[in-house]
Amino acid sequence: MASATVNGIEMSVLNDTVNAIRKDPQLGEAQFRVSNRWLGGNHNCSTIEDYYGARKENHHKQTIQIHADEPPLLAGHDAGANPVEHLLNALAACMTTSLVAHAAQRGITIEECTSEVEGDIDLRGFLGLADVPRGFTNIRVTFYIKTDEAHMQRLRDFAEYSPVFNTILDGAEINVDIFQRTANS
Amino acid sequence: MASATVNGIEMSVLNDTVNAIRKDPQLGEAQFRVSNRWLGGNHNCSTIEDYYGARKENHHKQTIQIHADEPPLLAGHDAGANPVEHLLNALAACMTTSLVAHAAQRGITIEECTSEVEGDIDLRGFLGLADVPRGFTNIRVTFYIKTDEAHMQRLRDFAEYSPVFNTILDGAEINVDIFQRTANS
Repeated sequence: MASATVNGIEMSVLNDTVNAIRKDPQLGEAQFRVSNRWLGGNHNCSTIEDYYGARKENHHKQTIQIHADEPPLLAGHDAGANPVEHLLNALAACMTTSLVAHAAQRGITIEECTSEVEGDIDLRGFLGLADVPRGFTNIRVTFYIKTDEAHMQRLRDFAEYSPVFNTILDGAEINVDIFQRTANS
Repeated sequence: MASATVNGIEMSVLNDTVNAIRKDPQLGEAQFRVSNRWLGGNHNCSTIEDYYGARKENHHKQTIQIHADEPPLLAGHDAGANPVEHLLNALAACMTTSLVAHAAQRGITIEECTSEVEGDIDLRGFLGLADVPRGFTNIRVTFYIKTDEAHMQRLRDFAEYSPVFNTILDGAEINVDIFQRTANS
């Protein structure tokens, strides 16, 4: 009998999702969302409750909250990771999930997977002090993986299925609207 | 006497940083980093401890940990936001921080700032089921702000100083290395 899980992933759930989307491509359309509230200074908090997928609204099992702040050097109180650290976390998490899930689908067992992600940024861009890029210019991702050596070559391809990796590489349209909140709105 | 804080930001700290970098541009060079560990299935955790800035290594006041998982529909257990939700959180947090800090520098008081961020993604890309973009294609950011109406027009420009916003718009180089971890490494 085949194992019900590979790399800790319930393969029947993953395969059901894959097969359903293969049969009905529209099921692949998803929307993810966060609400954010400024808490004063450089401290703010995002709330994550629901998402659209499989042609319906879905709720997370519990409401998720994520805090962001800056360290004291950048005029904050360190109440959470800062926003660019949150971006690096998103990248590390997404590449790890992609690597492990694609390996599972091919029956490749991962015993251990850790990674280090580091990004270079020139704060003069953000501060408006120089006409340099405002975002990260270079990001380095290093994975350390315990698995059969025969599979090592393919693991990089699996990691690069990552949506966050591809969003950063290819960019995305971002539409920004700003409305005034009055006492009545 | 001028207020020591604007929008909750200690202006002496922010101004000292800005003036120091203006005088010595190399002080603007920073590196941020996370370490990530796979915890099984779609669950992993990033640890954030230190960063390079102001020409030295700096430690956060405490070690920060951030969990990522997938909801049950995507074969996870909802132990945290999923990686693409973490990306949207990074964007919301960064644009908020940029808006509030640049407003503070110009003496513009923000009373309230909330935002909604939503991104569209076709999961067929991640799953390798179709040759479509693997990342977000469109992200919508909507801010609701309580402030003097005279300032509303400038706030969008302030938000767009955000490093995460610009990393997603312009992209960044991402170098990926994968090493095998053996019993001895």
